[in-house]
Formats: sequence, C-alpha cells, structure tokens
Amino acid sequence: MATPLEKCLATIVATFHKYSGKEGDKYKLNKSEMKELLMNELPAFHGKRMDGAEFQKIMNDLDHNRDQEIDFQEFLCFLGWWEHRG
Amino acid sequence: MATPLEKCLATIVATFHKYSGKEGDKYKLNKSEMKELLMNELPAFHGKRMDGAEFQKIMNDLDHNRDQEIDFQEFLCFLGWWEHRG
Repeated sequence: MATPLEKCLATIVATFHKYSGKEGDKYKLNKSEMKELLMNELPAFHGKRMDGAEFQKIMNDLDHNRDQEIDFQEFLCFLGWWEHRG
Repeated sequence: MATPLEKCLATIVATFHKYSGKEGDKYKLNKSEMKELLMNELPAFHGKRMDGAEFQKIMNDLDHNRDQEIDFQEFLCFLGWWEHRG
C-alpha cells in the first residue's frame, strides 16, 4: 500500500501534468500554464496579487536550464520555496 | 476548502517534520533522519539497495548550502529529482 508521501507525489504529478499537457511541451509548464495552475491549485499564492514583472522573476529563478519553461523538478523546488518562504 | 495540492503540501511538511524534529536542528534532516524517512515513507527509494557512498553523494548533491543537512526546500527538490529520475 502506498505511503502518504507516495500518494502525495502521485497527486502532484497528476496536477502538474493536468496543466503542462495543454500547450507545447507536454512535460513542462510554460508561463500561462504555470499561472493557470497557481490560480486554480494554489489560491494562496494567486491571492498575493503579483504584477507581471514579479511573476516573471519567479519564473526566471525557477527556470534553471533557461528554456523558458518549468519542468517537474523545477516545479517541486518552487513548492519548497513557496512553502518555506517564511 | 484546501485544494489537493495544498493538502499534499501539508502532508509533505508534516512528514518532513516528523523526522527532522528528532535530532539537532528541528527544521533540517541530518543523514540518519533522511535515511529513516526514506525507509519508512518512500520504500521504493529504499528498495534500490544503495551503498553508503551512493547515498552520501545524493546527500551532497541536495545539500546546496553545504551544512551537511537537508532543509525543506532541498528535500522538495530531491522529491522532484526522485520522481523524474527517468
């Protein structure tokens, strides 16, 4: 039987792919897919009322391989930053 | 009401602190806490039968700030790497 952590990983993978599969590379989030995911799945983040420049900075910080898209590992790092932003 | 992603983050935070709180810095996992977490919560990883050197390499790769411990953000990056290690 899957542990709670394993179940969570499966849920995060499914949530990620629900949005990454919409346009372009099926396994990466472009900017609009990331915005849509945050709006629907992480309302607390969306509620922070962020302007375009601030959001672009976050996208750039996350996009370690500079391909203008967020892969799954970069997304998990984002969740870690978001959860522990203090 | 919390979204599935928000619930998952809460579960991962709780799982992380269940082990990080055992010794030393309450908000970081040392090597033995990380091993125990993986053994209990991510059996698929534990099943990979990894020798000490391999495990130490993973700890070093994750430990971006070189404090010999894994903080929550580093742990989320690990989960991203583990889930998408291909």
